[in-house]
Order: sequence, then structure tokens, then C-alpha cells
Amino acid sequence: MSASTALLTDRYELTMLDAALRDGTAHRQCVFELFGRRLSGGRRFGVAAGQGRLMSLLRDFRFADDELRFLRDEKVVSAETLAYLENYRFRGSIEGYREGELYFPGSPLLTVKGTFADAVILETLALSVMNFDSAVATAAARMSIAAGDRPLAEMGSRRAHEHGAVAAARAAYITGFDATSNLEAGRAWGVPTMGTAAHAWTLLHDTEEDAFRAQLDSLGASTTLLVDTYDIAEGVRRAVELGGPDLGGVRIDSGDLPLVAADVRDQLDALGNTETTITVTSDLDEYAIAALAASPVDSYGVGTSLVTGSGYPTAGLVYKLVARQADSGEWIPVAKKAQGKGSTGGAKQAFRLLENGVATEEHVRLASDAPAPDGSRALVVPFVTGGEFDASHEGTAGVRSAREHHMAVRRELPTRALALSKSDPAIPTSLV
Amino acid sequence: MSASTALLTDRYELTMLDAALRDGTAHRQCVFELFGRRLSGGRRFGVAAGQGRLMSLLRDFRFADDELRFLRDEKVVSAETLAYLENYRFRGSIEGYREGELYFPGSPLLTVKGTFADAVILETLALSVMNFDSAVATAAARMSIAAGDRPLAEMGSRRAHEHGAVAAARAAYITGFDATSNLEAGRAWGVPTMGTAAHAWTLLHDTEEDAFRAQLDSLGASTTLLVDTYDIAEGVRRAVELGGPDLGGVRIDSGDLPLVAADVRDQLDALGNTETTITVTSDLDEYAIAALAASPVDSYGVGTSLVTGSGYPTAGLVYKLVARQADSGEWIPVAKKAQGKGSTGGAKQAFRLLENGVATEEHVRLASDAPAPDGSRALVVPFVTGGEFDASHEGTAGVRSAREHHMAVRRELPTRALALSKSDPAIPTSLV
Repeated sequence: MSASTALLTDRYELTMLDAALRDGTAHRQCVFELFGRRLSGGRRFGVAAGQGRLMSLLRDFRFADDELRFLRDEKVVSAETLAYLENYRFRGSIEGYREGELYFPGSPLLTVKGTFADAVILETLALSVMNFDSAVATAAARMSIAAGDRPLAEMGSRRAHEHGAVAAARAAYITGFDATSNLEAGRAWGVPTMGTAAHAWTLLHDTEEDAFRAQLDSLGASTTLLVDTYDIAEGVRRAVELGGPDLGGVRIDSGDLPLVAADVRDQLDALGNTETTITVTSDLDEYAIAALAASPVDSYGVGTSLVTGSGYPTAGLVYKLVARQADSGEWIPVAKKAQGKGSTGGAKQAFRLLENGVATEEHVRLASDAPAPDGSRALVVPFVTGGEFDASHEGTAGVRSAREHHMAVRRELPTRALALSKSDPAIPTSLV
Repeated sequence: MSASTALLTDRYELTMLDAALRDGTAHRQCVFELFGRRLSGGRRFGVAAGQGRLMSLLRDFRFADDELRFLRDEKVVSAETLAYLENYRFRGSIEGYREGELYFPGSPLLTVKGTFADAVILETLALSVMNFDSAVATAAARMSIAAGDRPLAEMGSRRAHEHGAVAAARAAYITGFDATSNLEAGRAWGVPTMGTAAHAWTLLHDTEEDAFRAQLDSLGASTTLLVDTYDIAEGVRRAVELGGPDLGGVRIDSGDLPLVAADVRDQLDALGNTETTITVTSDLDEYAIAALAASPVDSYGVGTSLVTGSGYPTAGLVYKLVARQADSGEWIPVAKKAQGKGSTGGAKQAFRLLENGVATEEHVRLASDAPAPDGSRALVVPFVTGGEFDASHEGTAGVRSAREHHMAVRRELPTRALALSKSDPAIPTSLV
């Protein structure tokens, strides 16, 4: 895999660039905006995620020999455009919502300013990253709200593209998950990693007893034993017999979880293992987690539904030209007129209005020097200024600060935003 | 991004390995099987995809300094296991369904044979690749059937993880799409690339006329002009005026497509542009494509629904230990007993039974030396034999042959398999 990210791009971005270099419009100053027209699935808020990944990928958005050779061989663009791309690096500016921030319809999540040439070719990559990561982050935040204080582990790698899995683990950690099974997410992004054992572990051994004993020998009594390979009650009895009073936990991966969890808790307590925890991991989503709130479950492992956005695997964000400079120097707001797909022209600012610390409105206005509204929190921060990247958003430090930011701003949500049922956005967006 | 793929793995694969090296079971010969218990979404067949990608990724499944350092620093495994991993390369065997092959519940898509140590740690990566690629391939095949002879272009990169997008374009090409917008899919996998222009292109210019003229100057009259930025009828009139009788096509990305397509066709014909094609691209899935069958549409561009598996973004495939060798040398079939998640023990063979060239049954049996059933097609081919990879599945040649194979075997399906509605699998699986 090439280190360059420049070909993670739709062909038409480059053919538009080619035509724009030819007719001179490539050098017009433009403002592109990345936003969502609506929230997927009747959710009450969205979570913007991926900005930290995107900035690192944009640093590698360069056309080196391999990329140029492909574009030349495939006759994608002219020789003049190849020469332009050879020297391309993003020299414009990007500002937007911090990673982990909440968003609503019309929130200007990223604003990309530069020449048409600078900005148009970032469209595909910016949307790929933000759409996937925000879809997972939004689902993860809902699960985190449903789980309350109980820990959540992300274990969906096997149900996602192998690199999507890493991004999903990262997004889930930012929005309230505590750990992931994915080792690369640990290495690349500093997400804590965890794991128990698979059914194959038990089946590998002559008996369940052999399997449990070997796992306890290797990982100690604090480990979590998977008790549902054969008979759950028998598995629990055996786990306690071998693990003793300090057995860390048992995991249940099948069955009717509220009923099974209650039975296992009773059995563990009767055996004296009142501190041994119960982890459940079978096809959970935010609704199943909420339905287990009154059950004696200590932690949740979530797989498929997390990495697939719990029914909404892409956030539906778009990247639109909203303003461009005329030859006179004047800025002209622009917008497509098509049915159901309109956008609002002009570069924007955004503020979250708060009353007594509770969010009341997403206040979006055309960019101006006017002061921020009273009692508001400014939502837009710089990511790239004149081609210079603000590194604080990137790497493991960026993940940590995104997680802290998300947890802080989630506390501003009104109570109605925490419900899982389909409804309108929790706060209205005013576009002034 | 490291060139190694070894950490695209769940932590528990390595902690199980660690415990198995300690108790000696790591060296037991095992058979793992990758299969689906059911078809997602009431589909009538699934398409197995990703094998060619997986084999290349498995070649890079090696633990180098970076990987070992992370595992040591995080105390994932013991020093003995680190030493084992340092020398790890897969020395077992893998056989399975060819990429592009159809599958049904219980079809043994991949069979991995080797020591427990060899085989267990491939689980996460094998499932990530096969689950994502097969989900997209299955959706793409249904769209391809719905489109009939009309060309299909994949343009969903912006709605998928940036590397998932490349895999999706590849999977769609294997199952009947003709081209992709994704340039990396062109470079890495030889998928033909295509593109038109975005609304931003029109909005960049002072007038739609300027935008069309510049695109025609750059790409020639055979290009496709996007006509719905402002008023469609006006856009079509202008496109014909500027593009002339040889204008290649117009694209419509909004509105009620059956109505709009009919109007645009009438208008083009009235203007004498009977050869100018109509491409539609707005939120299409297999149902919308089928609903346009009687409309004067020449080609389709499909985005979101393709890359997200049209409602089923993961194929739900699992990787299970199905047999292991006892210390006596005897092979023992093994299977989890849990409710709704059972599997069938033992290494298997698979054949597709055919009558007059039409598939009638998926015939799966425990491995034996018995001859293939009369009139059947053997489904299982070697991918890796004793650690040696069969390179024919990989790279651009692998993609081409997978596409040819898919098109050939799809013709074996009974007519009822081509319906889009939810139902049972098109043919039964017999497990002998």
C-alpha cells in the first residue's frame, strides 16, 4: 500500500481540476463546507469524528511517482495537470468542529478555504473519513449513554473492513467506550486493548476443565472465562471451582441475556462469588443494552452493531462549494437548487447557545466580525492555517483530547437528547 | 501505517496462543472453517469475496520489531510467545471457494488447516476481509441482476472508510459493475475508472454555460454533463446547444427519477440527440434500479447503498474450530452447543449439484476420498498448501478471474434466485 493517500479520491475531482486549470477557474478562491443535511435514523444528535485521522491523511495527500505514473498511464489528466499535481500540497485553510463534538443538521463541521484546485480534490477523502468515523461515533455515543456507568468494550473488528475496524475502535473510544479488542487501535491510537477467550479455546481442549485451567494458569484468576460453550450452569460451576473466590469474571455470548444473566448472578452469589463479574457480548446494540439496565450485568462487549453504525453505517455528510470569489474580488455565495438537496451559500460560523449549561440552539451564521452570542460556546477551531497543520488534533494526544471534549459537551445535552427513540434533533439549528 | 497486517487482530487471539503455548495445545493440528449460518436479509444467495485480498494480506501477516515492541510494552503475551511470533509465518493450508463464487448457509467458504497456533491468529483478519467484501459483493450482484445489460458504475467511496471504499469498488467489479470512481481501485486492482463532474464544477463558474463549455473543451463532446444544478430542462437544452449532436450523455442526480428520465429522454430526442445517453445517480439501490427498468435510462451510478451492503453492511460470516487432532492422532469433530449458534464439526468438502446446468443443491459432506457426486461442480480449490501461496488468486489477475468466475456461476442460478424480495436460499444445502 502506498504511503500517499492522494488516490483515495474520485476520478472526477482530478478531471474537474484538469478542466479548471485549462480555463483558469482553478485559481478562484473557494469555500467548501462539510455538513449533514439531516441526522441519520431520527437520531437526536450526531457526533463528529475522524478529524484527527483526516489531518494526518491530508499530510500524506501528495502525488509522488507512483501516483503520477498511474494518472499518466490511464490518461486521467493532461501533462499540465500532472505537473501541477507533482507540486501539490494543500496550501489553504481548514477550520471546523473539534473531534468528538456534537452536531445537528446544518452544522458546518469542516470549512475548507483555498483555491478551487486546493480544495476540490480533498472532497472524497474528507467525506470517507468523516462519514465512516462519525457514523460509528454516533452509534457508540448512544450505546455509551445506554450503558451508564457500566464499562463498554468494542469487539467488532471481524465485522468491518480490516482498516475500518481500527477507525471504528478509535471512534468508539472517543465517544465513551473503555477498550477495544483491536490491537492495531492500541498501537496506532493508544486505545486500551482487552480480550477474554473464544469458544475455539474450549473446543481445542479435551474438556472445558482443561481449557479453564490453562487460561487461569496463563492469565491468572482475574481473567474472564467464557462459560457458554456447552452448558452454562455447568460452565459457571466449573469456572468458580477452578478460579476460586477471586475469579474475575464470566462471559456469556448466547441465549436470552436478561434471563441468563439473572440465573448466572444467582448461581455466582450462591457459590460465594459475589465479586465475580458478568460480561455479555451477544449481538448487542443500544436497545439491547438499555433493556439490560435492570439486569445484573457488569460490562458489555459490542461488535457488529457498533462497527456498522447500528443500522446507519454512513453519516450522510456532504462536501459542498458554498462560496467563491468573483474576478472582482467579491465573495459570491453559491448553492445547488435541486429538490431536497439544497445547501446554503456562504462561509459560516457556529455557536452552541446554552442556558444554565444546557444546550438550547445550534446557532449558525454567515461569517462576520460580530461578537459571539451571549452565553454561547464557539464551535469552530482551526485545523490548518495557510497550509500549516495544527498537530494537536492528531495522534494519540488528539484521541485523548477528543474523548475528553466529547464527554464534556455531552453533559450539555438536554435530557430529551438521551432517549433512544426516533425523533427530531434535540436542539434546533438557526441559520442566520 | 505498518506494512505488517499482524496487529489487525483481536487481542484474545494472541492471549489464547500464549496460553496454548504454555499448556502444549498450541501444536495440536486443527481445522477452522469460515462460513455463514444464514444469508443476510432474506437474500437468495451470497457472493464470497475478499479471498484474493486476504491472501496478499496473509503474506504480510508477520510480527516485526514494531509489532513485537507493542506486544511487549503492553504485556499482551509472554516472552516465550514473543519469541514464537518473531518467527511466525503461516505454515498450514487453506482451501476454499473461489472468489466470486456463490454461497449458501453452511457453505465452507474457507477451511484453514494447521496447528492451533498457525490457524487461530488468522481469525480476525480473515473475517474482516471476507465479511466486508462479501457484503458488498452480494449487494452488487443483486444490483447487477436488476440492471440487466445497462452499465453500472460504483461511486460510493465518500460513504465508506477510505480503504473500505477501495475494497468495495473491487468487490463490485467482481460481481458485475463495470467501473468505479475510485482511483486507488484502478491502480491497485485494475478496475476501470470513470467520472463526470460535480455540482461544484457548475457553481464554480459564473454561468452553467461557462461550466459546460469548459468541460467540453477539456474532455470532448463524448463527456457526460451534469444537468440538474439549476433547472433540468434548461440544463438539457444548454447541454445540447453546446455539446452538439455528438454529446455523450447527461447525468441526473436528483428528483423523481422515472419521471425526470422520461422527460429528459423526450427532450433529448426532440432536439435530435437520440444517441445522447442518460445516467442517473441519486440514492440508487437494487430496488430503485429495478423500478427504473422500463425508464429510458442508459446507465446507473450507485453510491451509498453499494458500499454499505444495501442494508446489510457485514455478511455475518464466522470462523470456527470444527475439528482437532487428539494426542492419539485421531481427528475429533468439535462444535459449540450454544443456542442458535451451533456449528457442525469436522472438515468438509462441497459440491454444487446441477441439473441441465441449473443449480439444485449445495452438497456439503465430511471430507472423504469418495468421488464427486454425479453432475456436480467441486467448489473447493487450494489457496495455500503447506505455507506456499497459490498466487493466481491475487492481484489484478485474481480480480479478472474472479469476475469471470462469478459471471459464469451466476448463470447456473435458477430463475427464482434472481428475485429481489426476501425469501429462503435459492437452493437447499445438504450436509451429509
